[in-house]
Amino acid sequence: MTELTNPKSPRVKAARRLTKRAFRDRDRAFLAEGPQAVREALALPGVTVELFATAEAETRHADIVGAAVSAGVPVFRASGEVMAELAQTVTPQGLMAVCRFVHVPLSSVGETRLVAVLAHVRDPGNAGTVLRTADAAGADAVVFTDASVDPYNGKCVRASAGSLFHLPVVTGLPVDKAVAALKDRGLRILAADGTGKATLDDVDLAAPTAWVFGNEAWGLPPEVLALADEVVRVPIYGRAESLNLATAAAVCLYASARVLRQI
Amino acid sequence: MTELTNPKSPRVKAARRLTKRAFRDRDRAFLAEGPQAVREALALPGVTVELFATAEAETRHADIVGAAVSAGVPVFRASGEVMAELAQTVTPQGLMAVCRFVHVPLSSVGETRLVAVLAHVRDPGNAGTVLRTADAAGADAVVFTDASVDPYNGKCVRASAGSLFHLPVVTGLPVDKAVAALKDRGLRILAADGTGKATLDDVDLAAPTAWVFGNEAWGLPPEVLALADEVVRVPIYGRAESLNLATAAAVCLYASARVLRQI
Repeated sequence: MTELTNPKSPRVKAARRLTKRAFRDRDRAFLAEGPQAVREALALPGVTVELFATAEAETRHADIVGAAVSAGVPVFRASGEVMAELAQTVTPQGLMAVCRFVHVPLSSVGETRLVAVLAHVRDPGNAGTVLRTADAAGADAVVFTDASVDPYNGKCVRASAGSLFHLPVVTGLPVDKAVAALKDRGLRILAADGTGKATLDDVDLAAPTAWVFGNEAWGLPPEVLALADEVVRVPIYGRAESLNLATAAAVCLYASARVLRQI
Repeated sequence: MTELTNPKSPRVKAARRLTKRAFRDRDRAFLAEGPQAVREALALPGVTVELFATAEAETRHADIVGAAVSAGVPVFRASGEVMAELAQTVTPQGLMAVCRFVHVPLSSVGETRLVAVLAHVRDPGNAGTVLRTADAAGADAVVFTDASVDPYNGKCVRASAGSLFHLPVVTGLPVDKAVAALKDRGLRILAADGTGKATLDDVDLAAPTAWVFGNEAWGLPPEVLALADEVVRVPIYGRAESLNLATAAAVCLYASARVLRQI
């Protein structure tokens, strides 16, 4: 296999620019970095466009590189310098896939009993963590509204730890349209916000539910709170002023998951 | 008030070196950055040694600077350059306090019904987030064992969002000693780990409990699992391989808090 050694070569540059949203949107493609993400990407037929692997990663992750070859995905051996150019982490793990967009329209998602809506989540690490948590809690879909971070942001992809490839992700909808469509599906809309009068302990969670999560710093704006059937806060039993966003989302999603499992 | 303008002055250098653990341990002091942390530090008598404030922060946070003055805490006006030298964030908020260590021996902590033990938590952001979550869940203490990150690490202090000053924090104990002492207090020891046979849904949480949390990447080592009364995993209902540490801790601590509130 010939090794790509020039970080300025057209192929490397074409991949590299997918670190920018404008190019992702134009190419409808994004980067998935590291063995976990690449393995999950390859498990979805037709998603992986090409794979870059260092010689070391080819040896260490022979199963993953083998799966790519079997699937007919072009594999390029990359020098350390090329991988450093592509990677967005401090210690690259030697595997980088170019993937096609995986999001779907909300209308194509099957039965929904638990959905997470990221309404104003701006930090990609938080967004990816909520996506991972929603996956773990058995959510049927995660909606990134147009006011939230891009789910294909490299940091979000990494924080999702493969979950971006596990469950239907919807992106780009305005929050009011997303909420209306979820209501049409018969879901109860619960806005998670520190201003809620009801706490998580008060709310009956035994119904299909969409949780709406807001901004890290300022929560949800009034017009989004007004769309919800109920505004719910996670109770603070101690002296903390609030919970961080991903933590609050985990408590809400798992509270719902636990009840929905029992009915 | 004279303004400190020289980042190399002895006072600034003495504060600056508290970014390093060796100097923190020597001086038994640490840095608390930003209005939230400084406000909480000042609420504890005798904790704040001195306060650095930019002219802008003095105006914006006049209440905080006033509280420092009232408490007899020396306040130094710092130039932007001095604050940039002291601050560990990209966009400093103009307030930085030097604080005395606030941790306490476990023996001095009063009644304990819910305790979080960070056994091998290495990322300071995660550790601070767990501390904040434990505070929110009404935990009675948080124990940082000697194999975990320093609770006075700047990133941990920031992620705790003031919670470092809210509840008893114990630090430096070996995990076996910490567990033995908590058992002596009558607490049930639950190790949170993905290898657990029991899930959170199976376990009776209606007893005083200490949750033990492990490393971000590899969880808890066998010798720590062996110390626990039970090894418990957060159930994964979807396809995620695992939860991130702070998320799993939130789900566990809130599950306990909810049950303990009811008894």
